[in-house]
Amino acid sequence: MYQIYGINGCDALLSSDMFTIKKLFVDHSRLLKLKAKINKLHHKKIDDAMVLDRKSFLNKFPSKHTQGIVAHFEGNVELDADSVFEKMGKRKRACLVILDGVTDPQNFGQIIRTCECAGVDGVVISKHKSAGVTSAVMQVSQGAFLSMPVYIAGNLSQFMRKLKKNDFWVIGIENSVNASPWYRVDFNCNAAIVLGSEGSGISRLVGENCDIITTIPMKGSINSLNVSATVPVVLFERLRQISH
Amino acid sequence: MYQIYGINGCDALLSSDMFTIKKLFVDHSRLLKLKAKINKLHHKKIDDAMVLDRKSFLNKFPSKHTQGIVAHFEGNVELDADSVFEKMGKRKRACLVILDGVTDPQNFGQIIRTCECAGVDGVVISKHKSAGVTSAVMQVSQGAFLSMPVYIAGNLSQFMRKLKKNDFWVIGIENSVNASPWYRVDFNCNAAIVLGSEGSGISRLVGENCDIITTIPMKGSINSLNVSATVPVVLFERLRQISH
Repeated sequence: MYQIYGINGCDALLSSDMFTIKKLFVDHSRLLKLKAKINKLHHKKIDDAMVLDRKSFLNKFPSKHTQGIVAHFEGNVELDADSVFEKMGKRKRACLVILDGVTDPQNFGQIIRTCECAGVDGVVISKHKSAGVTSAVMQVSQGAFLSMPVYIAGNLSQFMRKLKKNDFWVIGIENSVNASPWYRVDFNCNAAIVLGSEGSGISRLVGENCDIITTIPMKGSINSLNVSATVPVVLFERLRQISH
Repeated sequence: MYQIYGINGCDALLSSDMFTIKKLFVDHSRLLKLKAKINKLHHKKIDDAMVLDRKSFLNKFPSKHTQGIVAHFEGNVELDADSVFEKMGKRKRACLVILDGVTDPQNFGQIIRTCECAGVDGVVISKHKSAGVTSAVMQVSQGAFLSMPVYIAGNLSQFMRKLKKNDFWVIGIENSVNASPWYRVDFNCNAAIVLGSEGSGISRLVGENCDIITTIPMKGSINSLNVSATVPVVLFERLRQISH
């Protein structure tokens, strides 16, 4: 069972068929405003909602950020990595983002959101080393988890070899290493973009399975771009190249 | 009085002369590890540290994320916007990032961090509409606030007019509007890059004072790139252009 709150996330959830909403809680004092912003609240789904008076709602959900709406739901948010080829079909210039050990839910959620905005076909995480798609991750993604498939690979290196056999270029991004800068990579291909963990980057074995390693040179003194900031740099450079 | 915790932030703080450390708390059970990672802990500053046994430390700072070190400090983190020209001198291809109403501390902290990595000369916020530089913002910035000046403008539009008189191009970024894409902007100039608030974008008056409005077209359905993801897209496109 997962939980998300807030207008954007709940609106996206109510409009999607991927999940089963088990409970929907609404703050009565905000009902009119919520109905104005969330289309589906007008229709049948509101029948299942528990409309609570303001005090009971705040007792149950004391966070300041719920915007008066909370959903509990079930469903399968993590797909098997082997289904990725079938799911994508023969898409030209497909793009996957592979996370090798991103554990911070804030970063993972933001990355899902950025991938959705950048037209990525899926995010792949390692079964053992990554933060799974938790409620916190979904919350940060602001509903993007509903349209961005997240695939789980039991063994990332093995999965990367399979990608290469299926005509993908596997591109590893490492901060501040001696490598060609990100904009010299040709993204006019099926691209699998690999990012490492917050602390230690891409692991050795995963790095060895990349076709190419590229880097984002830094200009300051702290020298560590957050992984959730690295992702938009690379993905929108890809979009710049393929819109030319 | 501000508070930050963790190895990266405290290391940067201890190495900086900008602030006065009032108290430094260290978890005794982690002292050896901390000394290995934080140079200055070997020297005189450790004399002022309160080394607490593990239980007392966790009682005082129950957060999981402190890594055994917490600093309380004072200093002036917000500079007057009018000092920006003096402080930057006659730098060629200067770059300022102007935030028109970014209120989320997570976003603001990440933006400071990204700006530091991208060689930006300063971040400008509005006195009335923005989140100030709070302890939470500093925490998220991971020490970047120590080398990234944050300027406060009483009136953003007025300040933007002053920038234009001082040979700056003022470039507004709006998501999903009918405007030229971000990579068509020529960043080979003194650039002031303006970003709007999480909810409502750039305000009318501030928008009218931009020389040009540019956009990042979206490819997905949620259509809202987070402002902390928009910033790296634009800043590293600028670096791509000026490294050519």
